[in-house]
Amino acid sequence: MANIGFLGLGIMGTAMATNLVRAGFKVTVWNRTQEKCRPLAKLGANQADSPCEVASRSDITFAMLADPVAAKEVCFGEQGVIQGIREGGGYVDMSTVDDITARMINDAVCKAGGRFVEAPVSGTKKPAEDGTLIILAAGDHSLYEEAKPAFEVMGKMCPYLGDVGQAARMKLVVNMVMGGMMTTFCEGMALGRRGGLEGAQILEIIAASALANPMFAGKGALLLNKDFPASFPLKHMQKDLRLAVALGDQLGQPLPSAATSNETFKLAMKKGYADHDFAAVFNVID
Amino acid sequence: MANIGFLGLGIMGTAMATNLVRAGFKVTVWNRTQEKCRPLAKLGANQADSPCEVASRSDITFAMLADPVAAKEVCFGEQGVIQGIREGGGYVDMSTVDDITARMINDAVCKAGGRFVEAPVSGTKKPAEDGTLIILAAGDHSLYEEAKPAFEVMGKMCPYLGDVGQAARMKLVVNMVMGGMMTTFCEGMALGRRGGLEGAQILEIIAASALANPMFAGKGALLLNKDFPASFPLKHMQKDLRLAVALGDQLGQPLPSAATSNETFKLAMKKGYADHDFAAVFNVID
Amino acid sequence: MANIGFLGLGIMGTAMATNLVRAGFKVTVWNRTQEKCRPLAKLGANQADSPCEVASRSDITFAMLADPVAAKEVCFGEQGVIQGIREGGGYVDMSTVDDITARMINDAVCKAGGRFVEAPVSGTKKPAEDGTLIILAAGDHSLYEEAKPAFEVMGKMCPYLGDVGQAARMKLVVNMVMGGMMTTFCEGMALGRRGGLEGAQILEIIAASALANPMFAGKGALLLNKDFPASFPLKHMQKDLRLAVALGDQLGQPLPSAATSNETFKLAMKKGYADHDFAAVFNVID
Amino acid sequence: MANIGFLGLGIMGTAMATNLVRAGFKVTVWNRTQEKCRPLAKLGANQADSPCEVASRSDITFAMLADPVAAKEVCFGEQGVIQGIREGGGYVDMSTVDDITARMINDAVCKAGGRFVEAPVSGTKKPAEDGTLIILAAGDHSLYEEAKPAFEVMGKMCPYLGDVGQAARMKLVVNMVMGGMMTTFCEGMALGRRGGLEGAQILEIIAASALANPMFAGKGALLLNKDFPASFPLKHMQKDLRLAVALGDQLGQPLPSAATSNETFKLAMKKGYADHDFAAVFNVID
Repeated sequence: MANIGFLGLGIMGTAMATNLVRAGFKVTVWNRTQEKCRPLAKLGANQADSPCEVASRSDITFAMLADPVAAKEVCFGEQGVIQGIREGGGYVDMSTVDDITARMINDAVCKAGGRFVEAPVSGTKKPAEDGTLIILAAGDHSLYEEAKPAFEVMGKMCPYLGDVGQAARMKLVVNMVMGGMMTTFCEGMALGRRGGLEGAQILEIIAASALANPMFAGKGALLLNKDFPASFPLKHMQKDLRLAVALGDQLGQPLPSAATSNETFKLAMKKGYADHDFAAVFNVID
Repeated sequence: MANIGFLGLGIMGTAMATNLVRAGFKVTVWNRTQEKCRPLAKLGANQADSPCEVASRSDITFAMLADPVAAKEVCFGEQGVIQGIREGGGYVDMSTVDDITARMINDAVCKAGGRFVEAPVSGTKKPAEDGTLIILAAGDHSLYEEAKPAFEVMGKMCPYLGDVGQAARMKLVVNMVMGGMMTTFCEGMALGRRGGLEGAQILEIIAASALANPMFAGKGALLLNKDFPASFPLKHMQKDLRLAVALGDQLGQPLPSAATSNETFKLAMKKGYADHDFAAVFNVID
Repeated sequence: MANIGFLGLGIMGTAMATNLVRAGFKVTVWNRTQEKCRPLAKLGANQADSPCEVASRSDITFAMLADPVAAKEVCFGEQGVIQGIREGGGYVDMSTVDDITARMINDAVCKAGGRFVEAPVSGTKKPAEDGTLIILAAGDHSLYEEAKPAFEVMGKMCPYLGDVGQAARMKLVVNMVMGGMMTTFCEGMALGRRGGLEGAQILEIIAASALANPMFAGKGALLLNKDFPASFPLKHMQKDLRLAVALGDQLGQPLPSAATSNETFKLAMKKGYADHDFAAVFNVID
Repeated sequence: MANIGFLGLGIMGTAMATNLVRAGFKVTVWNRTQEKCRPLAKLGANQADSPCEVASRSDITFAMLADPVAAKEVCFGEQGVIQGIREGGGYVDMSTVDDITARMINDAVCKAGGRFVEAPVSGTKKPAEDGTLIILAAGDHSLYEEAKPAFEVMGKMCPYLGDVGQAARMKLVVNMVMGGMMTTFCEGMALGRRGGLEGAQILEIIAASALANPMFAGKGALLLNKDFPASFPLKHMQKDLRLAVALGDQLGQPLPSAATSNETFKLAMKKGYADHDFAAVFNVID
């Protein structure tokens, strides 16, 4: 079994790396704040001092970082991945980054003699702990095949989607549909309640219908209470809608519903709900 | 157990009446074309010659008719329900009618000394046979309570929604959300495929996500093949979106996403897809 | 020269009737509040006690009433036009009414042996006084020809548009374009100002461009001051957008821009600007 | 009177430079294809061999180039403006370029000791010949003041709009309003004609109303004939709508009408009308 590296031990990364260790992988971990490595070390992971060191020790290095800035820092920074990656070594970035960042990392890794896969995930803390993430993978196919046993420990599915950039694109498509479903759902709730129907009954009936889905089930309760603690912040949803509409522009694909949802989310941003959960778009609809 | 009448033995009505007979209700049936009564008669149902006769013999008369025209004919026509309904008798119309028709029938039934419940259903042939329809009920509450044992045989839920008109309104809300989800879904599929992703993978990933729902599962296959045999005709969906947007106008509720979906469905109507399944809206998006 | 009747001496009607008297027509006037007839009487008009009397004395009777309710009352009420109209007499309703009302009046006038033209106007007090209204005429063509000399006194143009209903339809088209231009204009102002441009400069540049039009010139000042005294109330504009979108639904004509404008105007209604000028839609855009 | 340079003698540039020469300015011209300089030389202009030479001889150098690529080539290329510009010399780029290009040129000119003004124009061949362009100016204010006499020869107005980038922004706002007016206009025409009204009458009535504007007058005839020779290509309008919506995203300004228009123009692109006049958006509406 391959030597594996894991960079980034936030809530998600810790859960994912823990699952890898428990599944029997030999894992070397690194985190900017070193003490976050301890729980993993207790489980049997090795601890390294830098991304460079992890990359140089590992056949495949996985990363789960907070944002594109962190992803670039860990890759290109002093003692970064690029400085340590072996000839033919694998780097799998599971962070959610824009496609320019993904291509930049891909180019640098390839130039340094390594192989790259982007693998953003869908799912939050619970699926990370349960090993039921959806892992969207794209890039070097041989590396994908080698990383698959690890992906299967961390997620319930890991489709291979093509060249670097296609995984980010798939995530955009899914989030665009999510945003559109949310504005539609909120408009239905608002119309129904204004028309004298009870919100709870609307939710029950939808839950019993062919439209039933976990998102409506989870967010429906927030709508009833108009209380929106952020799970997926509204500003991130609006960003994804913006990027999806821009991708449509680039590809010549009209997207009237997505464009309209985007404007509704922009209104919610303007009214101050950027940091609430994206279901808070209900506040400007109802 | 009450004497029950059942008017209208089309695909839906036959399934529903069959379930009632099998559950032990004493049922008297009528259908415009008499020979459709035979299978029910074989199961033990009585057969009557007119809606009037059914209503005069029954404590509660249920009706499941094709459209508002048929619903009015059966109620107001010669030998219609109004002429036979007993003092205090119950009439439950489960057809999908507009709210003007519903109120007209309600007024006439009440004037004739009867009680009325509107109870349109969500669900098609299979749930009708399985007794798992969603029955949306509104109107006279005492009649609703008396009809409940029969509803529970025919459906998996039968929420009481208030005065006559509220059940039709709930159905409109549900269908509006369905229409909005469909244009969003089609836009996601179109964007993804134009961006080089495979349709089947998009469907799998959505099916594994929090957005997963029976409608996407069922209609997704149609999108892949661009073949749209009508289960719920596109023109009916567009009519419901139109009525939902009009209701929003009446109630002062802005519905930008629903209005945009409506326009996309109108474009599909214009391009000749009125009688295809409503998923054929994909043809004008992709 | 024909004997002319004029019903309804509000701000518009008084200006129009005055122009007719000054042009040399023999005019018999009536108004619900009799004292409003005095200024016209001083100029030489005859005064009658009821719409019936006016119709019985006149070759052509014009009406300019506040709304459909008033238009129906004057036509169908006790001592109404229908009771007095001569065989072959003409009735020209210049009020703005919905098309059901227009057809109802047309049918009754024709049944009573008369001829009918609907002739709603575009333009407010000033053009009414100046005789520069735009008169949109439809209905009986012979009556239209006979009324033309009077139309030419009251307006600068009086196109004949076909059967009863077509004039109302033309007005809807014009107002729909007006509503769409207004939301577009407001979005441009909002975007520009938010981007650091001066509102007054935006107005000047548009005024010098191929987009220059009297409406932007007139309403632009209101936008700068965010003060919107009602000239054309927002609720009427929203009603016209609603009717235009509904007409599009009926005719199978998609109207995505109009539908979106309608939703923005609905948002303005919801926020309490129904009775402000329709330019107050800026309040929910900026 | 200052020594003036003029780079780029296409249809627009030739007309503008001609007006400058005729007004008595001492003008040195350059064009990539040298023979286009001859008509100007005959009128008394000097001819130079490179942008560098023009800049070194002139107090202020104006440029009117085809696109951002040409604008950058002329500025940064071998024998480009940057190599010749004097300490304190002025460079006024009247080409239509994106704001990144504008800022790049500005930075280079300033670094080289010069001063920069961006001055994109609104108007085509005829206004260029008549000296009635709308010149949108932004950048170094002292240079703007010095260039003003030349601007006043070339245009009918030349508002100063602030820092570099603001002129491009103003042009975006104007074009966004233009695009929105066009989809609204097309929808009105389509609805009216589908409703049995004559297109020519719709145009006449709008032309007599407060909505009358040169664009509707000019493009209306194209709509009647459904023939759309490109004056302002549809793809450029769609690009401007896209940029305007993106600017709204960046500034947090919702623009539902512009976003919807953008989608309609995208549909027209998809259907193959990219190189037709932007009024050809009518083809996907009607």
